[in-house]
Amino acid sequence: MNLARVAQRLGITECRLQGLQETIIRESAWPEPRLLRFEKETSGIEAGTVIFENGEIVFGYPKIRRPLMLAAAIKRHFSDIVAVEEKMNGHNVRILSLNGEIVALTRGGFICPYSTEVARRLIPESVFEKHPHRVLCGEMVGPENPYVANDIYPTDSIDFYLFDIAEKNHRGTLGVHKTHEFAQEFGLLATAFFGEFRKESAAERIKQIVIKLGRQGREGVVMKDPENIVPPLKYTSSKTNCSDLAVAFRYYNDYALDFFVSRAVREGYQSVEWNESEEERRARALSLGESILLPLVDTIKSAQQGENIVQKVQIRVKSLQTARDFEYHLRRSGIRTIFEPPEPDDGGYLIRITKLVMSTNDKTQALLEGEMW
Amino acid sequence: MNLARVAQRLGITECRLQGLQETIIRESAWPEPRLLRFEKETSGIEAGTVIFENGEIVFGYPKIRRPLMLAAAIKRHFSDIVAVEEKMNGHNVRILSLNGEIVALTRGGFICPYSTEVARRLIPESVFEKHPHRVLCGEMVGPENPYVANDIYPTDSIDFYLFDIAEKNHRGTLGVHKTHEFAQEFGLLATAFFGEFRKESAAERIKQIVIKLGRQGREGVVMKDPENIVPPLKYTSSKTNCSDLAVAFRYYNDYALDFFVSRAVREGYQSVEWNESEEERRARALSLGESILLPLVDTIKSAQQGENIVQKVQIRVKSLQTARDFEYHLRRSGIRTIFEPPEPDDGGYLIRITKLVMSTNDKTQALLEGEMW
Repeated sequence: MNLARVAQRLGITECRLQGLQETIIRESAWPEPRLLRFEKETSGIEAGTVIFENGEIVFGYPKIRRPLMLAAAIKRHFSDIVAVEEKMNGHNVRILSLNGEIVALTRGGFICPYSTEVARRLIPESVFEKHPHRVLCGEMVGPENPYVANDIYPTDSIDFYLFDIAEKNHRGTLGVHKTHEFAQEFGLLATAFFGEFRKESAAERIKQIVIKLGRQGREGVVMKDPENIVPPLKYTSSKTNCSDLAVAFRYYNDYALDFFVSRAVREGYQSVEWNESEEERRARALSLGESILLPLVDTIKSAQQGENIVQKVQIRVKSLQTARDFEYHLRRSGIRTIFEPPEPDDGGYLIRITKLVMSTNDKTQALLEGEMW
Repeated sequence: MNLARVAQRLGITECRLQGLQETIIRESAWPEPRLLRFEKETSGIEAGTVIFENGEIVFGYPKIRRPLMLAAAIKRHFSDIVAVEEKMNGHNVRILSLNGEIVALTRGGFICPYSTEVARRLIPESVFEKHPHRVLCGEMVGPENPYVANDIYPTDSIDFYLFDIAEKNHRGTLGVHKTHEFAQEFGLLATAFFGEFRKESAAERIKQIVIKLGRQGREGVVMKDPENIVPPLKYTSSKTNCSDLAVAFRYYNDYALDFFVSRAVREGYQSVEWNESEEERRARALSLGESILLPLVDTIKSAQQGENIVQKVQIRVKSLQTARDFEYHLRRSGIRTIFEPPEPDDGGYLIRITKLVMSTNDKTQALLEGEMW
């Protein structure tokens, strides 16, 4: 690897790069190709940025910030027009081609064997033949997404929706319009585009979009500058905030504490901004309370009946090696699982996976036996 | 100070005591008398344990643990009989006499100037004349409790309710019966005693007591071993869990994250243990949701109207010096306040205090202006 060139592409000195290699840059030797990952953001380089052995860099996808007061944030943040796209609920991947092979990187900069197999199935080879330096940024969603399984999208398995395009070795992305043109050119799915609005009326229009998405169980929106000058923002439906809470309280001892509070606080701001009536606020309070109480009750009752608290997901693979690799990938990510024997299915294999939720399971068992909190 | 004797009373070696002085033992030179405080629990010595200059020790009041499944915990924890007392909602103090002067220690082992003045007014001198080594452990409650103001108890100002008795230089306490006898002998208020129950029927009886207390806005119960062999346990009403949440969400950026989650989880366990109907569960979910949403909405609306997010409390003192000392005491505890000019009242002074809730205030202002979370 030519360190000087890599440092230059990263926009830092060679000396700084060497310093980082001992601290926040980590090597990932598996699966091939080997790479270096930025474990945290530093010197303006996003977390999840990856340097491959040949010196090629894929920058991390920037974290999208979230306002709690939509209208005020739009007014403050955007210059004139706001382009609105759907925010989908799955996992973020960056797909690229390296030495003629497609790989899919997770947010953190690991190669995910399952996402890679899915990407190889879904992305036509012509994409990277024509644009070998492109990085496709998008969301993998569907019921066979083992990170975040979701039934609300039109797929029985897992699909990839493009939401942005980057270039290897370059920061920044190509923006809304080029992304949709690109998707159309190659017949890729892209996240739904809801239109462009003047900043004065955008908040009201987005509110209506978000309410409608919420009714369909869909997550929310990403607001983008069509000129791609200021960074995007995101905003979610009440339904999403509540269903996040429902998942978190179902596995209440396995989630970070700030996850709970941030979702509840979003509900407060949305209720104020949307100027709700007492009746609407009561309905929101009930949904909020139910999304906390009912999953807790379910979890506790399951444990009372002697069931283990687990999360069941499934994947569908062409190659059994992918499943074995994915099992190892989850293990290195700290997720404990049980992979059931593969069920041959339609030229491939269906594999049911049980994700163990050890902390909630153990805590709930102990509390049921009269242990103290 | 005779270090050897102090170490012996603490049950540790002199060498260990010296080691601790550089780490978790802190000096508090103000207000007089000077003392050393254990900032954390160590070597089985409770946090808040205090060593005075004359070598006398007041052990910290042990933390009372909380089961989430009441019946299972009672069965597991108690040997036969469970004595049930009210858990009151105020602040825990230890009152003692040192060189003929009454002082009140906070949970953390500081002398609180206001609690000390209150203790001097409420505790008859005969108590310590007759029992100079006694330490009165109890709760200060009422609307003029500046830590936790509460209107539900029969006082217009602040009262002290005895809940246990200790002896200087000795671990452990004298237990339920001696405490109530002592209170009666000296005409002190003591926390309500709800009776003694066999462990088989205790959970059901306590449930009824807790529901009734909840309806009155009162906090819950402490369960004690009448023989004082196993440590006490505590259990609170749904109303208390929800009103804790209401306070925490009103000042959502100033509370520790685990405060929120633990209260919500308690509701889940109570709902399961009490085997609630769908209707009851729905009502609980609504209260829970409202205790989160409505205080958030209030806080955000107040900030929208340009009001500062503050907490208003008041104290009543005989001496203006107490007020000045208390102001300093709050400041050293990291609480920012504005003390209004004293209002002469009934031979003393009423002082209104505004506690600044800086973090929530600043965060809410910023979010209203469209800042990101």
